[in-house]
Amino acid sequence: MKIEVIGSATQVNEECVKGKTAVVIDVLRATSVMVTALANGAKQVIPVVSPKEAFAMKEKLGSDVILGGERDALPISGFDYGNSPLQYTSDVVAGKNIVMTTTNGTLAINNAADADQLIIASFINAEAVVKFIKGNEDVALICSGTDGQFTLEDALCAGYLIEQLQMQNEDVNLTDMAVAMHQLYKSNQKKIVTIASQGKHYQNLLRKGFVKDLEYCFRTGLFANVPLRVGGVLKNTTC
Amino acid sequence: MKIEVIGSATQVNEECVKGKTAVVIDVLRATSVMVTALANGAKQVIPVVSPKEAFAMKEKLGSDVILGGERDALPISGFDYGNSPLQYTSDVVAGKNIVMTTTNGTLAINNAADADQLIIASFINAEAVVKFIKGNEDVALICSGTDGQFTLEDALCAGYLIEQLQMQNEDVNLTDMAVAMHQLYKSNQKKIVTIASQGKHYQNLLRKGFVKDLEYCFRTGLFANVPLRVGGVLKNTTC
Repeated sequence: MKIEVIGSATQVNEECVKGKTAVVIDVLRATSVMVTALANGAKQVIPVVSPKEAFAMKEKLGSDVILGGERDALPISGFDYGNSPLQYTSDVVAGKNIVMTTTNGTLAINNAADADQLIIASFINAEAVVKFIKGNEDVALICSGTDGQFTLEDALCAGYLIEQLQMQNEDVNLTDMAVAMHQLYKSNQKKIVTIASQGKHYQNLLRKGFVKDLEYCFRTGLFANVPLRVGGVLKNTTC
Repeated sequence: MKIEVIGSATQVNEECVKGKTAVVIDVLRATSVMVTALANGAKQVIPVVSPKEAFAMKEKLGSDVILGGERDALPISGFDYGNSPLQYTSDVVAGKNIVMTTTNGTLAINNAADADQLIIASFINAEAVVKFIKGNEDVALICSGTDGQFTLEDALCAGYLIEQLQMQNEDVNLTDMAVAMHQLYKSNQKKIVTIASQGKHYQNLLRKGFVKDLEYCFRTGLFANVPLRVGGVLKNTTC
């Protein structure tokens, strides 16, 4: 398996993902929300790029729609929920269509439109993602980052996925960036949160009071579902 | 001191470098050649983007010109020397104008045209670079990479510069990418070449037989000079 790691949503283009399985990572917090919502029974997650598009989608779909997402980490005016995965409980999301727009995660999904298949990863479903991609020939791990910049939490999650694949004897051929992210994870695996907490985005969320989200998003083995893009929306696949 | 790390020459733009000291790193091998040539008495190094520009510059300057550089790691037809630092000995370069074009290093220099000041770094002059940048407010470490891709050897050199600055009690404020590169260096400092040798560009040079260059370019403390851009050309500064 060839594995490359892309450092931010803005670096993703057709060439990076064509013919590949794209794995979009936005640990804090878009992909953690998507995994949680689908694990808790949401019908589907519809990622859109702008709030305007989200409102239009709600009008089009009619009932059973929840608008979720953020701008600058805060809820969007007129939306039902923000970007905290803890809000997306079963009683809120079961059977619902979640229309989401976030600054980085949904942008990465949009920019990776040309991938052969696209799935959603976070620490909370990492083991299921590893099961899903095992045996794939060509994988692009997309660290969404924040505001066009690389972030440590997504890099550490990419490194964790690579480590898990290696531990399961997958024969991996890593790009230089993939080697670097794997090393970053491997040499800090006992202190992931300590390293991640040096990140600008982590600190921004901490300042804004999202302490419980920060605890939640670094847990592993929580969910066995892998959100898979099917015709422009994300649906549950269970591994 | 704020430090950011940029992952490849193609990611460099005005916004990344404006108001900053840009430190261009292309360990294998452009910046190793530039440091070596100036340490060995070259009058100046003139980086240009294309072979065509190099020939035009030679015609303009007349005498005492050496054309150097590479395409796909190999010497360019009609040039005097390739991109091996070992070729740029005192008897070859003393008093000469070196016109250079390489795939990544000279592109990074060109893309960083808007930096407040621009210097050239490699492992072989890293300690001198650290002395030069100490006390600067805003530094961008530019890993030139290869063919638009991030490379391990440049990342490790960026990490080494950060480690040296911290060891000298410089108060550094690192971006997420800078934290990652520092961690990469720090956790592998006893096996830099082992990690670098997993890189695609390292392996490409190895296959092409540049074993001595690979040994040379990872040595530290060889030279005390820092090439500084002055009016579009690189001149020696000694620290």
